[in-house]
Amino acid sequence: MNIILLSGGSGKRLWPLSNDVRSKQFIQIFRTKDGSYESMVQRVYRQIKKTDADAKVTIATSKTQVSEIHNQLGEDVGISVEPSRRDTFPAIALAASYLADVQGVEPEEPVIVCPVDPYVEDDYFEALKEMEKFAAKGGADLFLLGIEPTYPSEKYGYIIPESADRVSAVSTFKEKPNADMAAEYIRRGALWNGGVFAFRLKYVLDKAHEQVDFTDYHDLFAKYDLLSCISFDYAVAEKEKNIRVMRFAGQWKDLGTWNTLTEAMEENSVGDATMNETCKNVHIINELNVPVLAMGLHDVVISASPEGILVSDKEQSSYIKPFVDKLDQQVMFAQKSWGSFRVMDVEEESLTIKVTLKAGHNMNYHSHKNRDEVWVVTAGTGRTIVDGMEQEVKAGDVITMQAGCRHTIIAESELKLVEVQLGREISVHDKQKYALEY
Amino acid sequence: MNIILLSGGSGKRLWPLSNDVRSKQFIQIFRTKDGSYESMVQRVYRQIKKTDADAKVTIATSKTQVSEIHNQLGEDVGISVEPSRRDTFPAIALAASYLADVQGVEPEEPVIVCPVDPYVEDDYFEALKEMEKFAAKGGADLFLLGIEPTYPSEKYGYIIPESADRVSAVSTFKEKPNADMAAEYIRRGALWNGGVFAFRLKYVLDKAHEQVDFTDYHDLFAKYDLLSCISFDYAVAEKEKNIRVMRFAGQWKDLGTWNTLTEAMEENSVGDATMNETCKNVHIINELNVPVLAMGLHDVVISASPEGILVSDKEQSSYIKPFVDKLDQQVMFAQKSWGSFRVMDVEEESLTIKVTLKAGHNMNYHSHKNRDEVWVVTAGTGRTIVDGMEQEVKAGDVITMQAGCRHTIIAESELKLVEVQLGREISVHDKQKYALEY
Repeated sequence: MNIILLSGGSGKRLWPLSNDVRSKQFIQIFRTKDGSYESMVQRVYRQIKKTDADAKVTIATSKTQVSEIHNQLGEDVGISVEPSRRDTFPAIALAASYLADVQGVEPEEPVIVCPVDPYVEDDYFEALKEMEKFAAKGGADLFLLGIEPTYPSEKYGYIIPESADRVSAVSTFKEKPNADMAAEYIRRGALWNGGVFAFRLKYVLDKAHEQVDFTDYHDLFAKYDLLSCISFDYAVAEKEKNIRVMRFAGQWKDLGTWNTLTEAMEENSVGDATMNETCKNVHIINELNVPVLAMGLHDVVISASPEGILVSDKEQSSYIKPFVDKLDQQVMFAQKSWGSFRVMDVEEESLTIKVTLKAGHNMNYHSHKNRDEVWVVTAGTGRTIVDGMEQEVKAGDVITMQAGCRHTIIAESELKLVEVQLGREISVHDKQKYALEY
Repeated sequence: MNIILLSGGSGKRLWPLSNDVRSKQFIQIFRTKDGSYESMVQRVYRQIKKTDADAKVTIATSKTQVSEIHNQLGEDVGISVEPSRRDTFPAIALAASYLADVQGVEPEEPVIVCPVDPYVEDDYFEALKEMEKFAAKGGADLFLLGIEPTYPSEKYGYIIPESADRVSAVSTFKEKPNADMAAEYIRRGALWNGGVFAFRLKYVLDKAHEQVDFTDYHDLFAKYDLLSCISFDYAVAEKEKNIRVMRFAGQWKDLGTWNTLTEAMEENSVGDATMNETCKNVHIINELNVPVLAMGLHDVVISASPEGILVSDKEQSSYIKPFVDKLDQQVMFAQKSWGSFRVMDVEEESLTIKVTLKAGHNMNYHSHKNRDEVWVVTAGTGRTIVDGMEQEVKAGDVITMQAGCRHTIIAESELKLVEVQLGREISVHDKQKYALEY
C-alpha cells in the first residue's frame, strides 16, 4: 500500500499541548499495551504497519514538523516537505510527485491519501486496503471514504451518494451545514466526507501537469507556489464525474478539541495527577514534573505543559482558539529529531534551557552574534567541538562559549545539559550554521 | 503597644502555595494600594504600625519561619524562636520572657497576644488598643476578644459571657460544637473566641514560673520542653476567675481554606491568568511564569506554584489536607531572608536551581560531601569565596566547586545564578557550615 498521510498545521485548539512547533498529532496521550504512550501520528503509523507491513508511508507536511516526525517515527518514513503552506491540492500533488520520482512508485500503482489524525481502529485501514484494490481495478478514477454519520454534525462536509450500496456513485457534495441541514442530509442518506482519496498515481500527476509544467519532483518543488492554493475536494473531487464513495461504519473520531480528545483516552489522567472521589468526568494531562490535584470538578479537562495551564469545562474547550491567539508566548518546549529542549528560566539578559540529545545525535555546528553561552553537562558522555577544537565531555563538565564562537555537541550516550544563554538580545533567530569541520 | 503575634505552623490547606517551609501567612495575595501584593503577616504588621507607629511587635514562631519573616518584614521585628513546636501556652510564656529580658518590657506593662493571620480591618487593632488599656488599668487579670458570630460555625471555640455588656465577665467556655449546638450557644449570647489575650506581662511570667523554675529568657529557652504542651486557653484562660471578654462586631475572617481566602481577594486573579466570559466565581493564583487559561468554570479555585497545581471546587477545597499529605514532595521554591530559590530541574544525578540573592546578602559559607556544584551568574555583581580565595563575579562568570570545597557568594547588587548540583546522593542535608574566613 502506498499511503500519503496529510499532516496538518499547528492547531491551537489543544493548547497548551499543541503550539507553534508542536501540532496535536504529536501529543503522546494514548496508552499502548506495553504501558507507554503514543501520539496520533504514532498510533496511525503503527496501525498502518499492522495492516500492511510493507506499506510505503509518505507524510506530506511542512519543514517545521520534519524533526518531530523523525523523533516519533524514526528515519525510515518518507517525508514530502512543502516549501510553503498552501492547501491540500498542492500538498497531494507534490507528494504524488515525490512518490513517483523519489520512491519509484509506478504511474499505474494505486495510492491512498488520508489525514494523519483520525482516531480509528484497524478496520479503518482494512477499508483503505479495499479502496486501494478498487483504485487498482480502475472502476473509477477517484474513490472517497464516506463515514456513516452518528449525529448531525456541523463540523464535517457531507457526500450524498446515489445509492445505499456499499460503493456508490456520488450525487452531490455538501459543505459543512448547520445542524438542521445536517439532519436533512442524513435523512437523504448522506455520509461524512472522511478526507480519504484513492486513485492511481498518474491521475493526480496529470491534474498537477494541467496546472504547472514540471519535469520531476524537484522541479515541482521549485514551482510549488504556482499550484493553486485550493483544497483537493474543490480542485479535483467535486469536479470528477468518474468518482465513487465507499461506506465505512466503523469507529471514526476527529480528535480536534479537548472534548473529543479526552473521550478517546483510556485513562482519566496522564502524568502526575490526583483526583478526589467527588470528581466526575475529569481528565488531567500533566506534562510537568509537579503534581496536579483536582477536587470536586465535573466535566473538566486540565492540561498542564511547559507552555501553560488550561482548566476548562469540556464543552467550552472548543472555543479556546481566540484566547490562545492572544497569549503572547515563547515556545517553552519542543521535541526535535535530535532530542528535546525545555526553557527553564527567562530573565531580561539570560535564558536557561535544558537540552536532551539522543545517543548518536548532535546539534548543528553554529554560532551566535549577540550572546555568550555556558553548557553544564548533567548526564551522559559525548564530544564538543568549539572553534574547531574537539574535546570529550561527561557529566560535570563545563563549556563556555563567547559570542561568535562556533560550537556543537555530539552525544555518544544520551546526553543532558543545562545551557545558560547570556546577552542583551537573546533570540532564536540569532544563529549562524556551518558545515562541521571534522 | 506590646504585641505578640502567634505565627502558626506549616498549614497544608492552602497547598500548593503553603508547604513545609512556607506557611499560609506568607502567601503574597492581597493587593495593596500601590499595586503590589502583601501577605497576611505583612498586612497585619502594616495595620498594627498604622494603628500604633510605636508598637513593639514580637513574633512567636519556629526556627523554620525566621528567614521568611525577615524577608517579608525586614530586620526590625522581634522574633521569639521556639526551640521546638509545642502549643500556645509554652509559646506565649517564652515570648513573654523574651519581652521582659530581651526587649526590656516592664512586668507591669500590658501585653496583647494575637494570631498572625486574622483578616481584619483597622477597627480590630483599635479594639486591641482598648483591651490594652483595660489590661493596664487592671480591672481583671486577663481580657479576651469575643467576636460577634455571623453564623453557627463549627470551626471556632465559643465564649458565653455573663452579660450583653461591651465588656463582661465570662460565664463559660465551649469547645468547637456541631452546627446545632453552635446555634444554641448563639441564642444564649455566645461569642467566637478570637484567640486574643491581653494581660500585664507579669501575669504570664508568673504562670510560667508556676510550671518551671527559670532565671531569664535564655534559661527558659533551654528548659522549654519542661513547659506543658497545652494551649493557653486550657492552661490559663479557662481556669482564670478574674477574666473579662470584650465584644467585637467588626470584620473578622479566618482565611484558613481556599474558599475563605479567595473571598478576601480584591481581584479574581493574581499572576498570569485569563478567564473567558463563562467563568463565574473563579479565582486564579498563578505563581508560575506561564499563563493559566480558565474556561466555563463555576465556583472554582486554581492555584499554581512551583510545588504543584490545585484545581478545586471552592467548597471541596476545605477537604484538601489528606490529599496533600499523600503527595511526596520536594520543596521546589522558598523565600529566605537572603533571597529565594527555585528548583528548575531534577535528574537522578543532578539538580538545577535558580538562586536570587538580595543586594548585600550572602549564602552561608559551606561545603558538600557528596556533590560538585557549578554556578553560572546570570545577573548582578558580587564576590565569591572558594576555599578562602576571594574573587569578584558578574553576569556570565562560571564558578566550579568540587565536593568538599568551601564556598559562598556575596551579592553586591541583586544577584541571580543558576546552580547545577552534580552527584549520586544529592540531599539538602549534605551541608557543612563554616564561619566566614574574611
